[in-house]
Amino acid sequence: MNLLSDFNTRHNQFLSKLEDHALDGFLTSKTENLKYLFNIECSVGFALTFEGSSTLIVDSRYINQAQNQSLHCQVELASDGLEKAIQTQLNTKKGSLGFEANHLPYRTASILKESGPNLDLIGQEQLIEELRQIKSLAELEKIRHAFQTALSVHDSVFGDISLWGKSESEIAARLDFEMRLAGSERPAFETMVLSGSRSAQPHSRPSYNPIDNNSPLLVDFGAVIDGYHSDNTRIHLPSGLDQLEILDIVQEAQDRAIEAIKPGIPAFELDKIARQFITERGFGNNFGHGLGHGLGLEVHELPRINAYSNAPLEEGMVFTVEPGIYIPDVFGVRLEEAVIVTSKGCDVLSG
Amino acid sequence: MNLLSDFNTRHNQFLSKLEDHALDGFLTSKTENLKYLFNIECSVGFALTFEGSSTLIVDSRYINQAQNQSLHCQVELASDGLEKAIQTQLNTKKGSLGFEANHLPYRTASILKESGPNLDLIGQEQLIEELRQIKSLAELEKIRHAFQTALSVHDSVFGDISLWGKSESEIAARLDFEMRLAGSERPAFETMVLSGSRSAQPHSRPSYNPIDNNSPLLVDFGAVIDGYHSDNTRIHLPSGLDQLEILDIVQEAQDRAIEAIKPGIPAFELDKIARQFITERGFGNNFGHGLGHGLGLEVHELPRINAYSNAPLEEGMVFTVEPGIYIPDVFGVRLEEAVIVTSKGCDVLSG
Repeated sequence: MNLLSDFNTRHNQFLSKLEDHALDGFLTSKTENLKYLFNIECSVGFALTFEGSSTLIVDSRYINQAQNQSLHCQVELASDGLEKAIQTQLNTKKGSLGFEANHLPYRTASILKESGPNLDLIGQEQLIEELRQIKSLAELEKIRHAFQTALSVHDSVFGDISLWGKSESEIAARLDFEMRLAGSERPAFETMVLSGSRSAQPHSRPSYNPIDNNSPLLVDFGAVIDGYHSDNTRIHLPSGLDQLEILDIVQEAQDRAIEAIKPGIPAFELDKIARQFITERGFGNNFGHGLGHGLGLEVHELPRINAYSNAPLEEGMVFTVEPGIYIPDVFGVRLEEAVIVTSKGCDVLSG
Repeated sequence: MNLLSDFNTRHNQFLSKLEDHALDGFLTSKTENLKYLFNIECSVGFALTFEGSSTLIVDSRYINQAQNQSLHCQVELASDGLEKAIQTQLNTKKGSLGFEANHLPYRTASILKESGPNLDLIGQEQLIEELRQIKSLAELEKIRHAFQTALSVHDSVFGDISLWGKSESEIAARLDFEMRLAGSERPAFETMVLSGSRSAQPHSRPSYNPIDNNSPLLVDFGAVIDGYHSDNTRIHLPSGLDQLEILDIVQEAQDRAIEAIKPGIPAFELDKIARQFITERGFGNNFGHGLGHGLGLEVHELPRINAYSNAPLEEGMVFTVEPGIYIPDVFGVRLEEAVIVTSKGCDVLSG
């Protein structure tokens, strides 16, 4: 749980990753990657790593923070604009420079390509994101904290309030407010409280209509602690209904997938296990999304847990397992837990 | 306030803008632009306009919404992934195609360039954003609604609660919660409640420390109604303090700038008027940001109101006027109003 040693490790892993890719340097501007490598939180800024040393370039808004807390980099103030500062830096460099091709806008990349006449700019897809898949103990601590915060607020809100006559939006607002008071920086994503036919569409938004008290209520929510996200989905059955066939099926599909988790298993296997069970029970066409996704500094990150993901699971990965069955125009159910892969299996984060 | 006629107007303006730029087509994927032109709210999707007709390509998450409410486009389901669907479309087209160079990631743009062998892809900076500067009556209604929502919540929260012992974060959470209950979709940006030295840095975040009851409290907040943002900053003086010299200076600077607003004036003039007054009073070095920014579907959009912006003001533009004086390590004050440019002057949106 030593923060400094975490950053040392990341820094060394990053540099050897550049070596693996035969890159002399790397330019990062993605907020989560800047935080991960250099301990800085800024919405706009660049870090240029070249031949082993890094320069963080920020404007006046972030200069104090950068000077006080950044690690493994020198800090430079872009007094004449960020683009100009980075152009000046690139102008003198020679060699191959990776950049975040999935993140950097086309225009910025084009300007940078022109400003380094002796540089070969090479778009990289997930270089730092791959490192971020394996969480350190300190990161796991923050993730656990985020899950505890969100889940305890969820339980207390749904224990306390009468849902009768309240709108989906009102309940979502209450969850967000209580999570914030409990220490969450912000909601991990737009909190979903969905009843009736809205729950049948995985990407609905809470409405201002009163919730439908005769249908299951789907609640998908998460907290953020020091940048690390939680993500759970819970189903509340209407009073008088103790059991629901499709919910039992989803539960069993989830249990089977979680049971199978251990290092070495390819991610698609988990998706297959859950999907196969749901299909056998006749609802294969009602489960239209992948089984899960990694989470950490982003609420969706590597590893992907779907039918196309060959990546073998590794100890220290954190991801969701969230099968669902959606009956169009009626309602949908989804159950979402997240797990940490351990040496022999996994820890479920609601535990 | 006829929604359909608004969309007709936008559509025609968009097509003639393409003609002005000698473009046969345009590809848009920016959420706010998709909403503006095609009445669809999706975080991921493409609209391809070519020779006057548009195809909206979305995945299964957004297909129902697209089919039910989109305007001025045909809808296509990307059943095999968005990238593949758009590649197929581009493959058959011939001519010049604009795209959002400030928005589209480098990797996506590169893939698209390769998929249209007879297409000349031309990055555009602000093509649709320029149209969005001039608001329709229906848009102004939503913007007014957002301002009324945020300001009335602000007044009631600060009328009701005792600030004593509360943290900045707690007050920000309360504002967010009450705005949501009053109809705001979400906070327009991370609500700032800053006291003491944190208010001296324009981009601080609320802390968990109790607010400093001996310093001015800076509150920067906004609501969102149907996608349209509000943005205001208010200063609350500590009890016992009725007046503050730098606050009076900022107020006078703001008044002078607002007084000067009318169609035809270049934007930099407003910045100059406010800056000159603050400089004359000896605080020129303590006002480190531009005077304001446009707002609408984004909280920062065109027009820019700063020293470098030559754009003449036009009737129907909406922007903030927010001079500030920041005393490092002590505190800062900023006052922020937003205005609608009218035929002869402006309407202040707090009115």
